[in-house]
Amino acid sequence: MSTLTEEIEALAAITEVEPPAVTRVIYSPEDLAGRELVKGLCREAGLTIREDAIGNCYARWEGSEPSLPAVATGSHIDAIPNAGKYDGVVGVLGGLEAIRTLQRRGFQPKRSIELITFTSEEPTRFNIGCLGSRLMSGSLPLEKALALTDNEGRTLDDWLKSSPYAQGDRSAILLKKGHYHAFAELHIEQGPILEREGLDIGAVTHIAAPASYRLEIIGQGGHAGGVLMPDRHDAFCGAAEFALALEKAAWNSGSSDTVATTGMIRVLPGAINSIPNHVEIGIDLRDIRLDTRTAAWDMATKALEEIATRRGLKTTLSTINEDAPATCDPGLVEATVASAERHGYSYQRQISRAYHDSLFMSRIAPTTMIFIPCYKGYSHRPDEYSSPEQIAKGVEVLADVLAQASEQ
Amino acid sequence: MSTLTEEIEALAAITEVEPPAVTRVIYSPEDLAGRELVKGLCREAGLTIREDAIGNCYARWEGSEPSLPAVATGSHIDAIPNAGKYDGVVGVLGGLEAIRTLQRRGFQPKRSIELITFTSEEPTRFNIGCLGSRLMSGSLPLEKALALTDNEGRTLDDWLKSSPYAQGDRSAILLKKGHYHAFAELHIEQGPILEREGLDIGAVTHIAAPASYRLEIIGQGGHAGGVLMPDRHDAFCGAAEFALALEKAAWNSGSSDTVATTGMIRVLPGAINSIPNHVEIGIDLRDIRLDTRTAAWDMATKALEEIATRRGLKTTLSTINEDAPATCDPGLVEATVASAERHGYSYQRQISRAYHDSLFMSRIAPTTMIFIPCYKGYSHRPDEYSSPEQIAKGVEVLADVLAQASEQ
Repeated sequence: MSTLTEEIEALAAITEVEPPAVTRVIYSPEDLAGRELVKGLCREAGLTIREDAIGNCYARWEGSEPSLPAVATGSHIDAIPNAGKYDGVVGVLGGLEAIRTLQRRGFQPKRSIELITFTSEEPTRFNIGCLGSRLMSGSLPLEKALALTDNEGRTLDDWLKSSPYAQGDRSAILLKKGHYHAFAELHIEQGPILEREGLDIGAVTHIAAPASYRLEIIGQGGHAGGVLMPDRHDAFCGAAEFALALEKAAWNSGSSDTVATTGMIRVLPGAINSIPNHVEIGIDLRDIRLDTRTAAWDMATKALEEIATRRGLKTTLSTINEDAPATCDPGLVEATVASAERHGYSYQRQISRAYHDSLFMSRIAPTTMIFIPCYKGYSHRPDEYSSPEQIAKGVEVLADVLAQASEQ
Repeated sequence: MSTLTEEIEALAAITEVEPPAVTRVIYSPEDLAGRELVKGLCREAGLTIREDAIGNCYARWEGSEPSLPAVATGSHIDAIPNAGKYDGVVGVLGGLEAIRTLQRRGFQPKRSIELITFTSEEPTRFNIGCLGSRLMSGSLPLEKALALTDNEGRTLDDWLKSSPYAQGDRSAILLKKGHYHAFAELHIEQGPILEREGLDIGAVTHIAAPASYRLEIIGQGGHAGGVLMPDRHDAFCGAAEFALALEKAAWNSGSSDTVATTGMIRVLPGAINSIPNHVEIGIDLRDIRLDTRTAAWDMATKALEEIATRRGLKTTLSTINEDAPATCDPGLVEATVASAERHGYSYQRQISRAYHDSLFMSRIAPTTMIFIPCYKGYSHRPDEYSSPEQIAKGVEVLADVLAQASEQ
């Protein structure tokens, strides 16, 4: 029998890059090998494995009333380039450990308890996150997903044909609302609050709603010395104004939870002595309220219109995704709080600012998330870290939440 | 015998990218092949070739008094990424055509006439423009030039070692003041004025003074969903504010000739869901007056300080070059005007807003430039265009100016 810490290290050793950095991109040999490791550990714990046609993996501990909707936990094991050991993994291997904890306690579930390993929570290969849970919850039509292309132009459909899931029944990916009685995901916070406040547990009440957009601005180029200021249609100056308008819109949305980021900017032709004629921008906008997020986006796009008209620029705006925020199930949040209190763990109710498979699971099942602290809030980098003690507390609380939901 | 138009097309076909776009970066195989084409055409016209140790090429038509300081013309054939066919090329191949015109006229020069193809007028590889003419005129010490590095960290010295110029005498690059009796450069305007006014010829009286700077901004990164607006130190938002402050400073410098451009921007890590923590910016600032250019730069750097303090960003600003403006030789300007009048070409006296090898040649010889119109003022882009008729008029005037100077 291995310990949870040993299992996390073993999974981290399966990486496309030099350890301690972890890279596991959907359907890479390392991603598939990682899934095998998880399945082996699940079988060792007596769980029954089912995989769907895009690789979502369900490991089931049969309850005494197997016809009742089951209770589920889980997360993902894929990792963006040069990430760490804990994002997602704590929810998968920690979820398994929660089940083993209940087994050690001699607990007999009424409702079955399932551990889900979701396919591609990270947007690395197909530029869209939460592929598995989007499809499972009906948040993304299968036909649209199959047509997604990677940066080499290869479709998901094509990737699947050479995957272990080629023979799967694609119509069985989608789960009905009510399929699960409850869903709870254990996750590192990916933010600094729990560590800073010295807290053990975050009981997540809301999951922020992400939206992302692509903006193209076309101006007029020319020699940096040859065109006087009044004759210019500088695409980058327009982009700069827009980025600041977006930033201002996030501040003024009416919610302190609105965050806007212009993280990807490409300026062409990109020479020091050429006026930029073409700018491509990637925009990320999030909030826990849809109304304030929409208000911020309205302000930003109105500003963009005014900037484009004044500066004589052409703009093309396209939506990559516009997901709705989720409110966690109050019963599950209170179960989390009650468990923490029982164990004497310090805790707070809090918001998840990053988005997770739980966002989509909340559309088909009562859902919550349990956060644990991570070093300085670091995530998506090799020095991401939560201690065995911090993880163990999260596992205990998750076990309690699953047990309680299984009895209901 | 090929025509000038055919020669321009033949040179344009030697490009690193898909035609009609032209890219020829210093010492690339295409740059070297282009030089060979030019040298071949010069030899065909009976000119004698000399190349110096960094590749400046002198093609000489020996005069009847070869010991007198010669008269020179010329320009460059290197091209920034995705540029056009005419910038520089019109001054090299058109310069050759002016010499052939004089030969056809049966003209016998007293002073020798030389055609110079300058090395790397564009700043593409080493981030500094007019490398050849700077060294030739003593405007840049050789040791400093040899230590220049490209974006991969490779020095000019190292590039030269594997170039055709490796065996050249480096001490012979520098020319003494008085080496040339006169220098005149034919060039497309790279601005819209001549075309808009329906004029054939621009007799250049001043060359604007360029300055270029590199700015690095360091902020704090993080997950786009994880860090609230008040906790951010977004390097790109700071860069955007600076670019707009610089633009405003150019408008408010006190001179309508001040132009400022933020043409090169690199944003890191460059992911849609990551807050930018590092931005690199290339800045180009020009004017025909040093005082107003300095005033604009003072405003921009004062704004930068304020932005950095307010946003909690670290900035590093370095000067790439800060060159003084040039006044053209009145005699050569009047020779240009007189020639245009004689041919019945419409003309104006005007300023060169772009900077050219002439700026540096003016430090060692009486210098002027002859401008011809180009389509919409476009330059540094594939649709840069001057018609054969427009070029032919420039060539006629250049031939007259060279002939007159050769007789003096």
